[in-house]
Amino acid sequence: MTKPNKKAVVLCSGGLDSATTLALAHHRGFVCHSLAIDYGQRHRAELFAAERIAQQLGAIDHCTLRIDLRTIGGSALTDPQIAVPESPANTESDTEPKTGIPITYVPARNTVFLSLALGQAEVLGATAIFIGVNAVDYSGYPDCRPQYLRAFAQLAKLATKAAVEGHLIAIEAPLLHLTKAQIIARGHQLGIDYAATVSCYQADPQGRACGRCDSCHLRRQGFIAANLPDPTRYQPTAPTAPKKA
Amino acid sequence: MTKPNKKAVVLCSGGLDSATTLALAHHRGFVCHSLAIDYGQRHRAELFAAERIAQQLGAIDHCTLRIDLRTIGGSALTDPQIAVPESPANTESDTEPKTGIPITYVPARNTVFLSLALGQAEVLGATAIFIGVNAVDYSGYPDCRPQYLRAFAQLAKLATKAAVEGHLIAIEAPLLHLTKAQIIARGHQLGIDYAATVSCYQADPQGRACGRCDSCHLRRQGFIAANLPDPTRYQPTAPTAPKKA
Repeated sequence: MTKPNKKAVVLCSGGLDSATTLALAHHRGFVCHSLAIDYGQRHRAELFAAERIAQQLGAIDHCTLRIDLRTIGGSALTDPQIAVPESPANTESDTEPKTGIPITYVPARNTVFLSLALGQAEVLGATAIFIGVNAVDYSGYPDCRPQYLRAFAQLAKLATKAAVEGHLIAIEAPLLHLTKAQIIARGHQLGIDYAATVSCYQADPQGRACGRCDSCHLRRQGFIAANLPDPTRYQPTAPTAPKKA
Repeated sequence: MTKPNKKAVVLCSGGLDSATTLALAHHRGFVCHSLAIDYGQRHRAELFAAERIAQQLGAIDHCTLRIDLRTIGGSALTDPQIAVPESPANTESDTEPKTGIPITYVPARNTVFLSLALGQAEVLGATAIFIGVNAVDYSGYPDCRPQYLRAFAQLAKLATKAAVEGHLIAIEAPLLHLTKAQIIARGHQLGIDYAATVSCYQADPQGRACGRCDSCHLRRQGFIAANLPDPTRYQPTAPTAPKKA
Protein backbone atom coordinates (compact mmCIF):
# COMPACT_ATOMS: atom_id res chain seq x y z
CA MET A 1 0.00 0.00 0.00
CA THR A 2 1.34 3.42 -0.86
CA LYS A 3 0.24 6.72 0.55
CA PRO A 4 1.00 10.16 -0.85
CA ASN A 5 4.21 11.50 0.55
CA LYS A 6 6.46 14.35 -0.25
CA LYS A 7 9.65 13.46 1.52
CA ALA A 8 12.99 14.78 0.38
CA VAL A 9 16.59 14.12 1.25
CA VAL A 10 18.44 17.44 1.34
CA LEU A 11 22.23 17.41 1.15
CA CYS A 12 23.24 19.90 3.80
CA SER A 13 26.89 20.90 4.04
CA GLY A 14 26.47 23.73 6.50
CA GLY A 15 27.18 26.35 3.85
CA LEU A 16 25.12 29.19 2.45
CA ASP A 17 23.96 27.34 -0.66
CA SER A 18 22.75 24.18 1.03
CA ALA A 19 21.01 26.17 3.77
CA THR A 20 19.09 28.07 1.10
CA THR A 21 18.30 24.81 -0.67
CA LEU A 22 16.92 23.31 2.54
CA ALA A 23 14.79 26.39 3.17
CA LEU A 24 13.45 26.23 -0.40
CA ALA A 25 12.61 22.52 -0.14
CA HIS A 26 10.85 23.13 3.16
CA HIS A 27 9.00 26.11 1.66
CA ARG A 28 7.79 23.87 -1.17
CA GLY A 29 6.18 21.58 1.38
CA PHE A 30 8.66 18.72 1.48
CA VAL A 31 9.26 16.83 4.69
CA CYS A 32 13.02 17.35 4.70
CA HIS A 33 15.58 14.79 5.86
CA SER A 34 18.88 16.60 6.11
CA LEU A 35 22.01 14.65 5.17
CA ALA A 36 25.56 15.83 5.87
CA ILE A 37 28.65 13.95 4.76
CA ASP A 38 31.67 13.86 7.00
CA TYR A 39 34.26 13.11 4.32
CA GLY A 40 37.31 14.17 6.26
CA GLN A 41 37.11 17.78 5.08
CA ARG A 42 39.52 20.17 6.72
CA HIS A 43 36.73 22.65 7.46
CA ARG A 44 35.15 20.53 10.20
CA ALA A 45 33.13 23.47 11.54
CA GLU A 46 30.73 23.11 8.62
CA LEU A 47 29.50 19.80 10.05
CA PHE A 48 28.37 21.47 13.25
CA ALA A 49 26.84 24.27 11.19
CA ALA A 50 24.94 21.68 9.12
CA GLU A 51 23.33 20.21 12.21
CA ARG A 52 22.39 23.64 13.53
CA ILE A 53 20.97 24.75 10.19
CA ALA A 54 18.93 21.57 9.77
CA GLN A 55 17.27 22.29 13.08
CA GLN A 56 16.74 26.00 12.37
CA LEU A 57 15.29 25.46 8.92
CA GLY A 58 12.74 22.81 9.80
CA ALA A 59 14.33 19.51 8.76
CA ILE A 60 12.56 16.58 10.39
CA ASP A 61 15.90 14.94 11.11
CA HIS A 62 19.58 15.25 10.38
CA CYS A 63 22.00 12.45 9.63
CA THR A 64 25.78 12.64 9.31
CA LEU A 65 27.30 9.89 7.19
CA ARG A 66 31.01 9.25 7.56
CA ILE A 67 33.23 8.42 4.61
CA ASP A 68 36.88 9.22 4.69
CA LEU A 69 37.76 10.69 1.30
CA ARG A 70 41.23 11.47 2.68
CA THR A 71 41.97 7.86 1.73
CA ILE A 72 41.53 8.98 -1.88
CA GLY A 73 42.99 12.48 -1.45
CA GLY A 74 43.74 14.65 -4.47
CA SER A 75 42.17 17.84 -3.13
CA ALA A 76 43.13 20.79 -0.98
CA LEU A 77 40.00 20.06 1.05
CA THR A 78 41.01 16.52 2.00
CA ASP A 79 44.81 16.48 1.75
CA PRO A 80 46.61 18.54 4.41
CA GLN A 81 49.68 18.60 2.12
CA ILE A 82 47.79 20.71 -0.43
CA ALA A 83 47.22 24.35 0.52
CA VAL A 84 43.86 26.06 0.02
CA PRO A 85 44.44 28.78 -2.59
CA GLU A 86 43.76 32.30 -1.44
CA SER A 87 43.66 33.95 -4.85
CA PRO A 88 40.24 35.03 -6.19
CA ALA A 89 38.12 32.27 -7.75
CA ASN A 90 38.89 31.07 -11.27
CA THR A 91 42.33 32.59 -11.37
CA GLU A 92 44.84 30.41 -13.18
CA SER A 93 47.88 29.39 -11.15
CA ASP A 94 50.45 26.62 -10.94
CA THR A 95 48.10 24.54 -8.84
CA GLU A 96 45.15 25.07 -11.17
CA PRO A 97 45.39 23.27 -14.51
CA LYS A 98 44.24 24.52 -17.87
CA THR A 99 40.56 24.02 -17.18
CA GLY A 100 40.68 26.50 -14.31
CA ILE A 101 39.11 23.92 -12.01
CA PRO A 102 40.60 24.75 -8.64
CA ILE A 103 42.57 22.45 -6.40
CA THR A 104 39.67 22.59 -3.93
CA TYR A 105 37.76 20.28 -6.30
CA VAL A 106 37.28 16.95 -4.49
CA PRO A 107 37.38 14.03 -6.95
CA ALA A 108 33.86 12.77 -7.69
CA ARG A 109 32.51 14.42 -4.52
CA ASN A 110 29.04 15.28 -5.76
CA THR A 111 28.71 11.84 -7.35
CA VAL A 112 29.55 10.22 -4.01
CA PHE A 113 27.19 12.58 -2.14
CA LEU A 114 24.30 12.08 -4.56
CA SER A 115 24.81 8.31 -4.46
CA LEU A 116 24.55 8.29 -0.69
CA ALA A 117 21.51 10.56 -0.81
CA LEU A 118 20.00 8.18 -3.37
CA GLY A 119 20.40 5.25 -1.00
CA GLN A 120 18.86 7.19 1.85
CA ALA A 121 16.02 8.50 -0.32
CA GLU A 122 15.22 4.97 -1.39
CA VAL A 123 15.06 3.67 2.18
CA LEU A 124 12.94 6.64 3.33
CA GLY A 125 10.60 6.48 0.35
CA ALA A 126 11.52 10.03 -0.60
CA THR A 127 10.58 11.38 -4.01
CA ALA A 128 13.32 13.97 -4.33
CA ILE A 129 16.93 14.74 -3.52
CA PHE A 130 17.83 18.41 -3.15
CA ILE A 131 21.39 19.57 -3.75
CA GLY A 132 22.63 23.14 -3.56
CA VAL A 133 24.91 23.11 -6.58
CA ASN A 134 25.22 26.22 -8.60
CA ALA A 135 26.61 26.65 -12.11
CA VAL A 136 26.89 30.45 -12.18
CA ASP A 137 29.00 31.82 -9.38
CA TYR A 138 30.67 28.48 -8.64
CA SER A 139 34.34 27.79 -9.07
CA GLY A 140 34.01 25.72 -12.23
CA TYR A 141 33.59 22.30 -10.63
CA PRO A 142 32.54 19.78 -13.32
CA ASP A 143 29.97 18.15 -11.03
CA CYS A 144 28.01 21.38 -10.63
CA ARG A 145 27.03 21.64 -14.30
CA PRO A 146 23.49 21.16 -15.63
CA GLN A 147 24.57 18.34 -17.96
CA TYR A 148 26.14 16.50 -15.03
CA LEU A 149 22.94 16.74 -13.00
CA ARG A 150 20.89 15.53 -15.96
CA ALA A 151 23.18 12.49 -16.25
CA PHE A 152 22.81 11.73 -12.55
CA ALA A 153 19.01 12.06 -12.79
CA GLN A 154 19.09 9.56 -15.67
CA LEU A 155 21.23 7.20 -13.58
CA ALA A 156 18.83 7.51 -10.63
CA LYS A 157 16.00 6.28 -12.88
CA LEU A 158 17.88 3.00 -13.34
CA ALA A 159 19.88 2.53 -10.15
CA THR A 160 17.34 1.61 -7.50
CA LYS A 161 14.77 -0.99 -6.59
CA ALA A 162 12.41 1.94 -5.95
CA ALA A 163 12.78 3.06 -9.58
CA VAL A 164 12.15 -0.47 -10.90
CA GLU A 165 8.98 -0.46 -8.80
CA GLY A 166 7.89 2.88 -10.27
CA HIS A 167 8.90 5.22 -7.45
CA LEU A 168 11.18 7.71 -9.10
CA ILE A 169 13.51 9.97 -7.16
CA ALA A 170 13.97 13.39 -8.75
CA ILE A 171 17.20 15.37 -8.50
CA GLU A 172 16.37 18.97 -7.59
CA ALA A 173 18.96 21.71 -7.83
CA PRO A 174 16.98 24.90 -7.26
CA LEU A 175 20.06 27.15 -7.16
CA LEU A 176 21.55 25.87 -10.39
CA HIS A 177 20.99 28.99 -12.46
CA LEU A 178 21.06 31.64 -9.74
CA THR A 179 23.91 34.01 -8.99
CA LYS A 180 25.25 34.08 -5.45
CA ALA A 181 23.48 37.42 -4.97
CA GLN A 182 20.15 35.93 -6.10
CA ILE A 183 20.64 32.97 -3.75
CA ILE A 184 21.29 35.28 -0.83
CA ALA A 185 18.32 37.49 -1.70
CA ARG A 186 16.02 34.44 -1.90
CA GLY A 187 17.31 33.09 1.42
CA HIS A 188 16.88 36.51 2.99
CA GLN A 189 13.21 36.49 1.91
CA LEU A 190 12.86 33.07 3.55
CA GLY A 191 14.31 34.41 6.78
CA ILE A 192 17.58 32.45 6.82
CA ASP A 193 20.14 33.55 9.38
CA TYR A 194 23.28 33.21 7.28
CA ALA A 195 25.46 33.89 10.32
CA ALA A 196 24.83 30.26 11.23
CA THR A 197 26.26 28.98 7.93
CA VAL A 198 29.92 28.20 7.24
CA SER A 199 31.17 28.44 3.66
CA CYS A 200 34.89 28.98 4.30
CA TYR A 201 37.28 26.23 3.17
CA GLN A 202 39.49 26.86 6.18
CA ALA A 203 37.08 27.98 8.88
CA ASP A 204 38.48 27.88 12.39
CA PRO A 205 37.01 25.55 15.03
CA GLN A 206 34.51 28.28 15.97
CA GLY A 207 33.27 28.37 12.39
CA ARG A 208 34.79 31.78 11.68
CA ALA A 209 35.76 32.46 8.07
CA CYS A 210 39.25 33.23 6.73
CA GLY A 211 37.96 35.86 4.31
CA ARG A 212 40.64 34.87 1.79
CA CYS A 213 39.73 31.55 0.13
CA ASP A 214 37.69 31.25 -3.08
CA SER A 215 34.58 30.35 -1.14
CA CYS A 216 34.90 33.43 1.11
CA HIS A 217 35.46 35.65 -1.95
CA LEU A 218 32.34 34.37 -3.69
CA ARG A 219 30.25 34.70 -0.56
CA ARG A 220 31.44 38.19 0.27
CA GLN A 221 30.84 39.42 -3.28
CA GLY A 222 27.38 37.85 -3.11
CA PHE A 223 26.32 39.91 -0.11
CA ILE A 224 27.72 43.05 -1.70
CA ALA A 225 25.90 42.41 -4.98
CA ALA A 226 22.67 41.56 -3.14
CA ASN A 227 23.01 44.82 -1.27
CA LEU A 228 22.55 43.02 2.03
CA PRO A 229 24.73 43.16 5.16
CA ASP A 230 27.22 40.31 5.37
CA PRO A 231 26.59 38.55 8.70
CA THR A 232 29.54 36.18 8.27
CA ARG A 233 31.69 35.78 11.37
CA TYR A 234 35.26 36.35 10.24
CA GLN A 235 38.53 35.45 11.96
CA PRO A 236 40.35 38.43 13.50
CA THR A 237 43.05 38.06 10.81
CA ALA A 238 40.59 38.19 7.89
CA PRO A 239 40.98 41.12 5.47
CA THR A 240 38.29 43.75 5.66
CA ALA A 241 35.47 43.60 3.10
CA PRO A 242 36.33 44.82 -0.39
CA LYS A 243 34.24 47.36 -2.26
CA LYS A 244 31.65 46.06 -4.74
CA ALA A 245 33.48 44.38 -7.63
CA MET B 1 53.27 16.03 -19.48
CA THR B 2 51.36 12.81 -19.88
CA LYS B 3 52.80 9.36 -20.36
CA PRO B 4 50.94 6.29 -21.56
CA ASN B 5 49.43 4.42 -18.69
CA LYS B 6 47.00 1.62 -18.31
CA LYS B 7 46.00 1.83 -14.71
CA ALA B 8 42.68 0.51 -13.48
CA VAL B 9 40.75 0.64 -10.26
CA VAL B 10 39.18 -2.77 -9.65
CA LEU B 11 36.31 -3.02 -7.17
CA CYS B 12 37.20 -6.11 -5.19
CA SER B 13 34.63 -7.45 -2.73
CA GLY B 14 36.38 -10.70 -1.94
CA GLY B 15 33.81 -12.75 -3.83
CA LEU B 16 34.09 -15.03 -6.84
CA ASP B 17 32.95 -12.44 -9.39
CA SER B 18 35.25 -9.63 -8.36
CA ALA B 19 38.22 -12.02 -8.08
CA THR B 20 37.59 -13.11 -11.66
CA THR B 21 37.24 -9.48 -12.74
CA LEU B 22 40.57 -8.59 -11.14
CA ALA B 23 42.28 -11.55 -12.83
CA LEU B 24 40.80 -10.51 -16.19
CA ALA B 25 41.91 -6.88 -15.78
CA HIS B 26 45.42 -8.03 -14.83
CA HIS B 27 45.44 -10.44 -17.77
CA ARG B 28 44.56 -7.54 -20.10
CA GLY B 29 47.69 -5.73 -18.92
CA PHE B 30 46.20 -3.19 -16.56
CA VAL B 31 48.16 -2.10 -13.50
CA CYS B 32 45.40 -2.93 -11.02
CA HIS B 33 44.58 -0.92 -7.91
CA SER B 34 42.21 -3.02 -5.86
CA LEU B 35 39.48 -1.20 -3.94
CA ALA B 36 37.29 -2.81 -1.28
CA ILE B 37 34.47 -1.00 0.48
CA ASP B 38 33.83 -1.68 4.14
CA TYR B 39 30.19 -0.58 4.21
CA GLY B 40 29.23 -2.31 7.44
CA GLN B 41 28.26 -5.53 5.68
CA ARG B 42 27.43 -8.43 7.96
CA HIS B 43 29.72 -10.75 6.02
CA ARG B 44 32.92 -9.16 7.31
CA ALA B 45 35.03 -12.12 6.22
CA GLU B 46 34.79 -10.93 2.61
CA LEU B 47 36.95 -7.92 3.47
CA PHE B 48 39.82 -10.15 4.56
CA ALA B 49 39.26 -12.27 1.48
CA ALA B 50 39.44 -9.13 -0.70
CA GLU B 51 42.85 -8.24 0.67
CA ARG B 52 44.13 -11.79 0.18
CA ILE B 53 42.79 -12.01 -3.35
CA ALA B 54 44.23 -8.64 -4.37
CA GLN B 55 47.64 -9.93 -3.36
CA GLN B 56 47.23 -13.34 -5.01
CA LEU B 57 45.95 -11.93 -8.28
CA GLY B 58 48.64 -9.33 -8.85
CA ALA B 59 47.06 -6.04 -7.77
CA ILE B 60 49.72 -3.39 -7.22
CA ASP B 61 47.94 -2.23 -4.08
CA HIS B 62 44.76 -2.69 -2.12
CA CYS B 63 42.74 -0.02 -0.37
CA THR B 64 39.78 -0.47 1.95
CA LEU B 65 37.46 2.53 2.13
CA ARG B 66 35.08 2.74 5.07
CA ILE B 67 31.54 3.99 4.73
CA ASP B 68 28.89 2.88 7.11
CA LEU B 69 25.79 2.12 5.05
CA ARG B 70 24.18 0.75 8.22
CA THR B 71 23.31 4.41 8.86
CA ILE B 72 21.05 4.13 5.82
CA GLY B 73 19.99 0.52 6.37
CA GLY B 74 17.20 -1.00 4.30
CA SER B 75 18.96 -4.27 3.46
CA ALA B 76 19.48 -7.68 4.99
CA LEU B 77 23.20 -7.13 4.42
CA THR B 78 23.42 -3.98 6.54
CA ASP B 79 20.51 -4.22 8.97
CA PRO B 80 20.87 -6.95 11.59
CA GLN B 81 17.08 -6.81 12.10
CA ILE B 82 16.48 -8.14 8.57
CA ALA B 83 17.24 -11.83 8.07
CA VAL B 84 19.20 -13.08 5.06
CA PRO B 85 16.74 -15.20 3.04
CA GLU B 86 17.72 -18.83 2.63
CA SER B 87 15.31 -19.68 -0.19
CA PRO B 88 16.74 -20.12 -3.69
CA ALA B 89 17.42 -16.93 -5.65
CA ASN B 90 14.52 -15.09 -7.29
CA THR B 91 11.87 -16.87 -5.30
CA GLU B 92 9.01 -14.56 -4.33
CA SER B 93 8.30 -14.30 -0.64
CA ASP B 94 6.84 -11.85 1.86
CA THR B 95 10.14 -10.07 2.19
CA GLU B 96 10.65 -9.81 -1.56
CA PRO B 97 8.35 -7.36 -3.35
CA LYS B 98 6.76 -7.76 -6.76
CA THR B 99 9.92 -7.11 -8.72
CA GLY B 100 11.60 -10.14 -7.18
CA ILE B 101 14.53 -7.97 -6.12
CA PRO B 102 15.71 -9.66 -2.92
CA ILE B 103 16.03 -8.06 0.47
CA THR B 104 19.79 -8.50 0.17
CA TYR B 105 19.72 -5.58 -2.29
CA VAL B 106 21.63 -2.68 -0.64
CA PRO B 107 20.13 0.67 -1.65
CA ALA B 108 22.26 2.37 -4.30
CA ARG B 109 25.26 0.22 -3.40
CA ASN B 110 26.85 -0.05 -6.82
CA THR B 111 26.29 3.67 -7.41
CA VAL B 112 28.13 4.44 -4.17
CA PHE B 113 30.90 1.95 -5.01
CA LEU B 114 31.37 3.21 -8.56
CA SER B 115 31.39 6.82 -7.33
CA LEU B 116 34.18 6.05 -4.89
CA ALA B 117 36.09 4.14 -7.55
CA LEU B 118 35.64 7.13 -9.87
CA GLY B 119 37.21 9.43 -7.29
CA GLN B 120 40.12 7.06 -6.79
CA ALA B 121 40.56 6.51 -10.53
CA GLU B 122 40.73 10.25 -11.07
CA VAL B 123 43.41 10.74 -8.42
CA LEU B 124 45.47 7.80 -9.71
CA GLY B 125 45.11 8.80 -13.36
CA ALA B 126 43.48 5.45 -14.15
CA THR B 127 41.71 4.97 -17.46
CA ALA B 128 39.28 2.28 -16.36
CA ILE B 129 37.16 1.05 -13.47
CA PHE B 130 36.45 -2.68 -13.38
CA ILE B 131 33.37 -3.99 -11.62
CA GLY B 132 32.28 -7.61 -11.40
CA VAL B 133 28.56 -7.12 -11.94
CA ASN B 134 26.68 -9.75 -13.78
CA ALA B 135 23.22 -9.52 -15.36
CA VAL B 136 22.66 -13.23 -16.00
CA ASP B 137 22.96 -15.37 -12.90
CA TYR B 138 22.58 -12.42 -10.53
CA SER B 139 19.67 -11.95 -8.16
CA GLY B 140 17.92 -9.23 -10.13
CA TYR B 141 19.61 -6.21 -8.60
CA PRO B 142 18.74 -3.09 -10.64
CA ASP B 143 22.30 -1.78 -10.45
CA CYS B 144 23.69 -4.85 -12.21
CA ARG B 145 21.87 -4.22 -15.50
CA PRO B 146 23.56 -3.12 -18.75
CA GLN B 147 21.42 0.03 -19.02
CA TYR B 148 22.46 1.01 -15.51
CA LEU B 149 26.14 0.64 -16.35
CA ARG B 150 25.70 2.64 -19.56
CA ALA B 151 24.11 5.45 -17.52
CA PHE B 152 27.01 5.41 -15.05
CA ALA B 153 29.54 5.48 -17.90
CA GLN B 154 27.73 8.52 -19.29
CA LEU B 155 27.83 10.18 -15.88
CA ALA B 156 31.55 9.45 -15.55
CA LYS B 157 32.16 11.39 -18.79
CA LEU B 158 30.79 14.52 -17.11
CA ALA B 159 31.58 14.10 -13.42
CA THR B 160 35.30 14.66 -13.13
CA LYS B 161 38.00 17.20 -13.70
CA ALA B 162 39.87 14.42 -15.49
CA ALA B 163 37.02 14.09 -18.00
CA VAL B 164 36.87 17.85 -18.61
CA GLU B 165 40.61 17.67 -19.34
CA GLY B 166 40.07 14.84 -21.81
CA HIS B 167 41.10 11.87 -19.67
CA LEU B 168 38.09 9.60 -19.79
CA ILE B 169 37.57 6.77 -17.33
CA ALA B 170 35.83 3.75 -18.85
CA ILE B 171 33.50 1.50 -16.89
CA GLU B 172 34.41 -2.13 -17.59
CA ALA B 173 32.12 -4.99 -16.58
CA PRO B 174 33.67 -8.04 -18.23
CA LEU B 175 31.31 -10.52 -16.53
CA LEU B 176 28.12 -8.69 -17.47
CA HIS B 177 26.82 -11.23 -19.97
CA LEU B 178 28.42 -14.39 -18.60
CA THR B 179 26.67 -17.11 -16.63
CA LYS B 180 28.12 -18.07 -13.27
CA ALA B 181 29.45 -21.27 -14.88
CA GLN B 182 31.18 -19.29 -17.63
CA ILE B 183 32.71 -16.95 -15.04
CA ILE B 184 34.06 -19.91 -13.06
CA ALA B 185 35.41 -21.59 -16.18
CA ARG B 186 37.20 -18.40 -17.22
CA GLY B 187 38.66 -17.91 -13.75
CA HIS B 188 39.76 -21.54 -13.69
CA GLN B 189 41.67 -20.96 -16.96
CA LEU B 190 43.35 -17.97 -15.34
CA GLY B 191 44.38 -20.09 -12.36
CA ILE B 192 42.23 -18.48 -9.68
CA ASP B 193 42.04 -20.32 -6.39
CA TYR B 194 38.36 -19.83 -5.61
CA ALA B 195 38.83 -21.33 -2.15
CA ALA B 196 40.23 -17.93 -1.17
CA THR B 197 37.04 -16.10 -2.20
CA VAL B 198 34.00 -15.53 0.00
CA SER B 199 30.61 -15.10 -1.67
CA CYS B 200 28.33 -16.08 1.22
CA TYR B 201 26.08 -13.35 2.67
CA GLN B 202 26.48 -14.79 6.14
CA ALA B 203 29.96 -16.27 6.12
CA ASP B 204 31.38 -17.05 9.53
CA PRO B 205 34.47 -15.23 10.85
CA GLN B 206 36.66 -17.89 9.23
CA GLY B 207 35.09 -17.08 5.86
CA ARG B 208 33.22 -20.39 5.68
CA ALA B 209 29.98 -20.34 3.68
CA CYS B 210 26.48 -21.13 4.99
CA GLY B 211 25.49 -23.06 1.85
CA ARG B 212 21.94 -21.77 2.14
CA CYS B 213 21.73 -18.09 1.10
CA ASP B 214 21.04 -16.91 -2.47
CA SER B 215 24.69 -16.19 -3.06
CA CYS B 216 25.73 -19.69 -1.94
CA HIS B 217 23.04 -21.25 -4.17
CA LEU B 218 24.19 -19.35 -7.25
CA ARG B 219 27.83 -20.15 -6.58
CA ARG B 220 27.24 -23.83 -5.94
CA GLN B 221 25.12 -24.21 -9.07
CA GLY B 222 27.87 -22.43 -11.00
CA PHE B 223 30.51 -25.01 -10.09
CA ILE B 224 28.11 -27.84 -10.91
CA ALA B 225 27.24 -26.31 -14.30
CA ALA B 226 30.91 -25.62 -15.05
CA ASN B 227 31.66 -29.23 -14.22
CA LEU B 228 34.42 -28.18 -11.85
CA PRO B 229 34.98 -29.17 -8.24
CA ASP B 230 33.58 -26.66 -5.74
CA PRO B 231 36.49 -25.61 -3.48
CA THR B 232 34.26 -23.48 -1.23
CA ARG B 233 34.89 -23.92 2.47
CA TYR B 234 31.47 -24.57 4.01
CA GLN B 235 30.38 -24.34 7.64
CA PRO B 236 29.86 -27.74 9.33
CA THR B 237 26.10 -27.03 9.38
CA ALA B 238 25.86 -26.29 5.64
CA PRO B 239 23.66 -28.65 3.60
CA THR B 240 25.49 -31.03 1.30
CA ALA B 241 25.77 -30.10 -2.38
CA PRO B 242 22.60 -30.57 -4.46
CA LYS B 243 22.55 -32.46 -7.73
CA LYS B 244 22.84 -30.46 -10.95
CA ALA B 245 19.71 -28.25 -11.36
